Amino acid sequence: MKMLKEKIQKEGIVLSDTVLKVDTFLNHQIDPQLMQEIGKEFAARFKDAGITKIVTIESSGIAPALMTGLILDVPVIFARKRKSLTLSDNLLTATVYSFTKQESNDISVSKDMLHEEDVVLLIDDFLANGQALKGLNDLVKQSGAQVAGAGIVIEKGFQTGGKEIRANGLRVESLAIVESLVNGGVVFAEESVNK
Amino acid sequence: MKMLKEKIQKEGIVLSDTVLKVDTFLNHQIDPQLMQEIGKEFAARFKDAGITKIVTIESSGIAPALMTGLILDVPVIFARKRKSLTLSDNLLTATVYSFTKQESNDISVSKDMLHEEDVVLLIDDFLANGQALKGLNDLVKQSGAQVAGAGIVIEKGFQTGGKEIRANGLRVESLAIVESLVNGGVVFAEESVNK
Repeated sequence: MKMLKEKIQKEGIVLSDTVLKVDTFLNHQIDPQLMQEIGKEFAARFKDAGITKIVTIESSGIAPALMTGLILDVPVIFARKRKSLTLSDNLLTATVYSFTKQESNDISVSKDMLHEEDVVLLIDDFLANGQALKGLNDLVKQSGAQVAGAGIVIEKGFQTGGKEIRANGLRVESLAIVESLVNGGVVFAEESVNK
Repeated sequence: MKMLKEKIQKEGIVLSDTVLKVDTFLNHQIDPQLMQEIGKEFAARFKDAGITKIVTIESSGIAPALMTGLILDVPVIFARKRKSLTLSDNLLTATVYSFTKQESNDISVSKDMLHEEDVVLLIDDFLANGQALKGLNDLVKQSGAQVAGAGIVIEKGFQTGGKEIRANGLRVESLAIVESLVNGGVVFAEESVNK
């Protein structure tokens, strides 16, 4: 997605060979117009998949998920990273290890929100080692719902999550695949690799 | 806001005389069409305020804030509830006590995101005792930016936060003011009180 890649080149900060900071438009400050375009793109790619619900993880997944949900006209559910007192114990859960934060979190979704007849699109901001996406996928499958695929804003193609998850048969659509962050620059994979 | 109040009456669950659960459209599952209408309403109420940035708190504030930002065409910043490794120490911070979760959190926004010339609209999902909104207000003022007001989706009018904050001179616009949750029912304040 050209608009996204240009934004990453212009505003992304390469903190190391593996860490790309996009706090000005995705992870802390959000660019609503860009999110709308991202929503349109995900909606277009999954328009024939019969999606009935979108599931993401708080917090950075919410904006792209919401815009996709608006266009596909389906509810958006965000998995919580820990239990809240206003959620009951009626939960689907999975454990996700974050390499960035070096900690494990339980993610959870209320059982009331997902049903066997649902067809779910998973949305997240980043895909790197794939822990979060695997957790989301596990959690949704516990409900008996079908997972139609995943929409990822930025995939780190030099990490193994995307390859592993695709090899397991899940359709993964990433709007920008970063091939390398070496020497402080962002190199994207060729567009054909995006498919 | 009629559409919101009808949704609360239809789907809100009164857990106690003080706790209203709206997990089916705001705090866990999100209704994108309703969020769009909420965004339109906030944008209309603050259209002449010269807003340059919207500031909210993760996670439930993000959806209404994003939709408002889309219509006002300004960036949305979400305060984080704790430090992330990809954020530097270059932070504006405030401490917020949550009566619901019975814990204190530091909320923070990067100093890079807010500047003296900014005119900020604060958005949050709930206003009860006002701790979160006061924290957000303090945090933004540390940057030297001006706070034009606050947009709240649901205010608990029987708690004191809204009164206190308005008495301190901040403009607060709440789309639904709940006057009482006694006996398992939701009673709204009269629309004229909303102003």
